[in-house]
Amino acid sequence: MAVAETPTKKDLEFLRDLGQQLRVDSIRSSTAAGSGHPTSSMSAADLVAVLIGRHLLYDWSRPKEPNNDHLIYSKGHASPLCYAMFKAVGAISDDELLTFRKFGSRLQGHPTPALPWIDVATGSLGQGLPIGVGVALAGKNLDKLPFHVWVLCGDSEIAEGSIWEALDKAGKYGLTNLTPIVDVNRLGQRGETEYGWQTDVYAARVSAFGCNPVVINGHDVAEIDRALGAARGSRGRPTVILARTVKGKGFSEIEDRDGWHGKALPPDMAERAIKELGGERNLRVETMRPEPGEPYQLRRPSHPVHLPKYAKGEKVATRKAYGDALLALGAVASVVATDGEVSNSTHADEFAKAYPDRFFEMWIAEQQMVATAVGLAVRGYAPFASTFAAFFSRAYDFIRMAGVSEVSIKLAGSHAGVEIGQDGPSQMALEDLAAMRAVHTSTVLYPSDAVCAAALTETMVSLPGIAYMRTTRGAYPVLYDATERFPIGGSKVVKRSAGDQVALIGAGVTLHNCLEAAGVLAKEGVKARVIDLYSVKPIDTETLREASADTGGRLVVAEDHYPQGGLAAAVMEALAMEPQPPRVAHCAVRNLPTSGAPAELLAAEGIDAAHIAEAARRLLAGSKKKGG
Amino acid sequence: MAVAETPTKKDLEFLRDLGQQLRVDSIRSSTAAGSGHPTSSMSAADLVAVLIGRHLLYDWSRPKEPNNDHLIYSKGHASPLCYAMFKAVGAISDDELLTFRKFGSRLQGHPTPALPWIDVATGSLGQGLPIGVGVALAGKNLDKLPFHVWVLCGDSEIAEGSIWEALDKAGKYGLTNLTPIVDVNRLGQRGETEYGWQTDVYAARVSAFGCNPVVINGHDVAEIDRALGAARGSRGRPTVILARTVKGKGFSEIEDRDGWHGKALPPDMAERAIKELGGERNLRVETMRPEPGEPYQLRRPSHPVHLPKYAKGEKVATRKAYGDALLALGAVASVVATDGEVSNSTHADEFAKAYPDRFFEMWIAEQQMVATAVGLAVRGYAPFASTFAAFFSRAYDFIRMAGVSEVSIKLAGSHAGVEIGQDGPSQMALEDLAAMRAVHTSTVLYPSDAVCAAALTETMVSLPGIAYMRTTRGAYPVLYDATERFPIGGSKVVKRSAGDQVALIGAGVTLHNCLEAAGVLAKEGVKARVIDLYSVKPIDTETLREASADTGGRLVVAEDHYPQGGLAAAVMEALAMEPQPPRVAHCAVRNLPTSGAPAELLAAEGIDAAHIAEAARRLLAGSKKKGG
Repeated sequence: MAVAETPTKKDLEFLRDLGQQLRVDSIRSSTAAGSGHPTSSMSAADLVAVLIGRHLLYDWSRPKEPNNDHLIYSKGHASPLCYAMFKAVGAISDDELLTFRKFGSRLQGHPTPALPWIDVATGSLGQGLPIGVGVALAGKNLDKLPFHVWVLCGDSEIAEGSIWEALDKAGKYGLTNLTPIVDVNRLGQRGETEYGWQTDVYAARVSAFGCNPVVINGHDVAEIDRALGAARGSRGRPTVILARTVKGKGFSEIEDRDGWHGKALPPDMAERAIKELGGERNLRVETMRPEPGEPYQLRRPSHPVHLPKYAKGEKVATRKAYGDALLALGAVASVVATDGEVSNSTHADEFAKAYPDRFFEMWIAEQQMVATAVGLAVRGYAPFASTFAAFFSRAYDFIRMAGVSEVSIKLAGSHAGVEIGQDGPSQMALEDLAAMRAVHTSTVLYPSDAVCAAALTETMVSLPGIAYMRTTRGAYPVLYDATERFPIGGSKVVKRSAGDQVALIGAGVTLHNCLEAAGVLAKEGVKARVIDLYSVKPIDTETLREASADTGGRLVVAEDHYPQGGLAAAVMEALAMEPQPPRVAHCAVRNLPTSGAPAELLAAEGIDAAHIAEAARRLLAGSKKKGG
Repeated sequence: MAVAETPTKKDLEFLRDLGQQLRVDSIRSSTAAGSGHPTSSMSAADLVAVLIGRHLLYDWSRPKEPNNDHLIYSKGHASPLCYAMFKAVGAISDDELLTFRKFGSRLQGHPTPALPWIDVATGSLGQGLPIGVGVALAGKNLDKLPFHVWVLCGDSEIAEGSIWEALDKAGKYGLTNLTPIVDVNRLGQRGETEYGWQTDVYAARVSAFGCNPVVINGHDVAEIDRALGAARGSRGRPTVILARTVKGKGFSEIEDRDGWHGKALPPDMAERAIKELGGERNLRVETMRPEPGEPYQLRRPSHPVHLPKYAKGEKVATRKAYGDALLALGAVASVVATDGEVSNSTHADEFAKAYPDRFFEMWIAEQQMVATAVGLAVRGYAPFASTFAAFFSRAYDFIRMAGVSEVSIKLAGSHAGVEIGQDGPSQMALEDLAAMRAVHTSTVLYPSDAVCAAALTETMVSLPGIAYMRTTRGAYPVLYDATERFPIGGSKVVKRSAGDQVALIGAGVTLHNCLEAAGVLAKEGVKARVIDLYSVKPIDTETLREASADTGGRLVVAEDHYPQGGLAAAVMEALAMEPQPPRVAHCAVRNLPTSGAPAELLAAEGIDAAHIAEAARRLLAGSKKKGG
């Protein structure tokens, strides 16, 4: 694609008019809605006008075209501008524009992929740019296609650390196919931003982070045009456009005035504003279309996957099985991976060594790591991201938003729970099951042995939504044959007999403790069923129901997790509407753990075999008293 | 306190010896433990030797002395160095040193406040420095005491965005009483860090973020001494010391070698290392003591608190009541507040206007906002931090670690759930109850009316641990008299009669829906109890138990939250071991919400009065069939 030629006077006139139209339409839609962010749209209208008029390569009738540019509104609250743009390019009608923020409309308060031209949901600031880095990484390193990634940022969101994680990686990976455009309109939600119009502060930071800052007047269409053209042609360092703009630009009553963030203009003001802006227009932009392109994974063959094999009884850590399986899954061309500088602990390093072109080191920047995965998923890849389970909490907002985006990413959290031992509580994920279960589209997996972990890793490749697998640090005996299947939403009854009096339910390390407890109870003449709840969400309600019915409603749930919202909660939620919900004795971590040997900590926190057996005894004694 | 004079040759000799002792002791403790991070300790040993030998003002016998310096190991894995330091200053014995990482020892894998000289738990990288910013803010702006805040950082953690949020705020607030010391040892956990020894990269960034970088040789004690002395005397901009060091320094077999992160030396290697380092030593450092000082809040009087008053039936948003109450609590000298540039939505702005000296704007940097609160709590303040409930997910790892630190902070999350309406799912907290309940030390509150919200805000001031209050965007009728009390762990039975057939349980907006549903049911001749579960954690098990018993185990729980881990899970966890656990019909958000009017969304997601009434009917019908 040739860089656009110098615009004519007429071209510039058109762009100015287009900017005014975007402003007018931003006002019209938000005033019709009675809410929204017109002023934050008006500041960036000229930037978007020049972008769609002369630089964006996009086929609006084929949003899945692999070589389309990407345009991410990191400042998602500028949705009126985004939707006005959709109208200007003919993607939506003026009628639809006026459905903004109404129930049932695709034009929501902040953009979501309910619209086919939106890659990811935005609205939690500081996320669009990190995700754009992931998209650009795919474009440069995997797809090797000339599409460009444009990200419209607000100046308020520059305060988010995630923005600096993103610019750092953009610089580090030389992502010249990425152009952040910062709408420096000086005013945030509740007053002036941290640095107002001090674009020199931003420029110095951008430069120090390995990118090339270009400061422009964001309302001079010729200057914008030159900057966007140069940005697309960047060599070496990505360009970051710092556009000095005016909030509410074009309507003198509110230009650069505090107190107008996130407020629709009342109808009378809207009328005056539209008049001042030159009235309604119906300019139509014919966006340039990209050359057709094919994404990388379609150009590369996939090979059969040979999952690792483990002998029953052999001691293997599930995190190791994850690494082994990920390596095997390298045979699938769409599988890619990223990690937060702990790949030698998560075992993602085996994939990294074998497939260095499909592995992206994010160093210790978990937010960017998850954002990279999201960006890769936007490009159709199957991204696995790994770190200690505890440290996914650093990226929880990114995971939440990935759920809102309904993209498919695969998260592997290792070193869960007190089982990690000596490293102490800062490294122990003890709230991840609760947090991850509550994420929209999430699947939560927690394998107890290596065969299950490897099989689930393979299943995750094509699993829609947020797939989270929790793995264990230590090595425990392999329980299953290599041929065993582990469907999502399933479980394994690893021990059962007629007349089971109680069911012991665990996952991960506690499943092994449950098995040991069942052995102890057997010696006392108590028959205990043991269930491996490897699929925490969705959960195997049928098997739990049967266990409850068979045992007279006596369940023990043991988990290496705080008591709230984890395995036991999942079991109770599943059986909440049974005619007779079970009694659930709950072994969980109830105090702040310390350092120690894993066995010491499992005992101290009451989740080892002895405590599980004791919980079963109490349940049986209690039930007898009550005649259950 | 006078700046230390130029060290004599003998002084320097002592410091070099002290550094070697810290190395030897780091090796001894970790080898005895069989795990830990000796090499990451050895790189920073000279930095710490000079700091404790000549610059730190600290009375080890009185860790609560208000004018003690603070020393935070942001690189918490350098715990062997930290504990070797404690030995060198006489705070712990050599015997205790050798209990490192053993069960029952205070010397855990990563530092925690189990030790009286540790302010906060570290080990999740990139958190110590942001917390140090909070401590320094307290020192400069509140306590107005000359204590200095030293933070030992690793180079790997510089990749965390939170570090840049912290340096930005350090520069912005001119925190010359804060000195980050970065141990640039080039090697991370799994190989070279992102920038190795390129201290010029770090220096440019530090400078651009408003701080003054000083690059030194981190093994030259004279150079370290000059840098620390100058840093303490910084004017205008805080100094950041970038110390070029060698990982494993002092033991030639492993110096600057990859593959030695987080590994204890085997005994034979340890022996050789200790020999090379000059053998065991028992040097004792007499740390300089600070002048006694009094913290600000003890120098200022507190006044009686007059909580806002609301008339029953008046429509008031709970977020507004939070703001009103926070303003009233300004009468208490220890109450301080911070917000993430949304104070006009969270209503923290009323406090900010009235008490500008006790309000800290963090702009859109939620991680730093929570870290600031933690730092203020370390200094004895009662910090309230507010943003949209959804955006606390951005700081979840910081909240988790604040739990591990067992500090007391108060978080107010506004705009929860689909009730917010038009802004759409990116702004809707729908997983916060699950995530926050699972945090160690957390209290989770969810008031339904303004009186309750104001009362709980006051209660939060002295509540230990992480106090989280979820507030609602829209205005709903005041339900309670101004004299009503709302104890933590309590609930309110807002409607009850003899012969109640079902209990409707809600909190926040759904409590109002439950009341409306009860009215609908009453017309059908169904008696429904209604319970306001304002204290989600701890929960009022007694009242729930009674409701279950009185209604034959028929509970409807309605919540503006995803189905996992929230209100219903809390209810079931509480009643899990009842002789007959209740059946729980659950109205929760089960799809990805969109934009729309609040009432439309509550209906669409099945949590409005009509759906709650219908759930009650089904429960009654089902129970009849089953004979319950």
